[in-house]
Amino acid sequence: MAKTEIDTLVELLARLPALGPRSARRAVLFLLKKKQTHMEPLIRAFSDVYEKVSPCPLCGNMDTQQPCVICSDPSRNPAEVCVVQDVSDLWAIERSHTFKGLYHVLGGVLSALDGIGPDELNIVSLLGKIKQNDVKEVILALPATVDGQTTAHYLADILEKENVVVSTLSHGVPMGGELDYLDDGTLQTAFKRRHKI
Amino acid sequence: MAKTEIDTLVELLARLPALGPRSARRAVLFLLKKKQTHMEPLIRAFSDVYEKVSPCPLCGNMDTQQPCVICSDPSRNPAEVCVVQDVSDLWAIERSHTFKGLYHVLGGVLSALDGIGPDELNIVSLLGKIKQNDVKEVILALPATVDGQTTAHYLADILEKENVVVSTLSHGVPMGGELDYLDDGTLQTAFKRRHKI
Repeated sequence: MAKTEIDTLVELLARLPALGPRSARRAVLFLLKKKQTHMEPLIRAFSDVYEKVSPCPLCGNMDTQQPCVICSDPSRNPAEVCVVQDVSDLWAIERSHTFKGLYHVLGGVLSALDGIGPDELNIVSLLGKIKQNDVKEVILALPATVDGQTTAHYLADILEKENVVVSTLSHGVPMGGELDYLDDGTLQTAFKRRHKI
Repeated sequence: MAKTEIDTLVELLARLPALGPRSARRAVLFLLKKKQTHMEPLIRAFSDVYEKVSPCPLCGNMDTQQPCVICSDPSRNPAEVCVVQDVSDLWAIERSHTFKGLYHVLGGVLSALDGIGPDELNIVSLLGKIKQNDVKEVILALPATVDGQTTAHYLADILEKENVVVSTLSHGVPMGGELDYLDDGTLQTAFKRRHKI
């Protein structure tokens, strides 16, 4: 078959992180069979997001309003800032309804392998925010990987000069987790950080 | 967070067969970070397909032109018709460059469980096509499932009255397949259908 509009769409969809060529084809066929009920609303939703959504200039969250709903919510505590690697982490914490402060999206973590140094991350704006908002606590909610923890220690060193408490998420056995299925590193951490109940 | 344009897009994407809520969110964030290079072309491709693609009135293939590229290709042999369950099967056979006749998409297979009877399938138009095009061979390329093979036998019975050869795809060990990994049914079929080399 010559390269058609369908092929172009399949190719573009197959570039998405969760899809390959086969699942992209399935998705396109699914949508072609449900043009009115599924494809038309999807195109409209895509256009809405494309036109309206951009990163919040204060925290880096993706939202339709600037500053974002979180930064412009007066009920949230500006003295607590949670530093995350990416917007997806911010959304995950919001879904857990556990944190009522503000966020700061770093946009990555330090990585020698990927050539990401401090200048590639939103660190200067974090320091500016800490001074401006009179921040009392910075919570480093970074991934429990080598790069994530390196970044956490790097930030903790910088923030030592500022008058803030720097904390990090606890590590250990996930809630509902079977010990049998856990990796050694998590089990070791869980033992080392054991505490009285 | 209140329900935003992003949530709507994630929900619509999560309805696609290959995606769930988590992968839909990842896809949306990926696209938001690459608005110009990925999101904009994707929206345009979606609109193109939405406006231009519809099912071919002759075979049921999805295409931008009517009749589709296959039905309107004079180099293809109209005396051979390959009957498939769905457009995805038609595309798969086209990718293998193995068949140079025309297709007929049934739109499903007979299924007592799903309440799909002969009236739900494109059988009348198949019979019309056979008479009109002076078809010599009908190849039933239907799935090797119980429903698929029931449908194949049902069609073979009907087509007995027409003056056509009815054939079906061979079943057996897939090329490159390890016997060790094959299911019992395939191995049994491969033994039963063994032939001299």
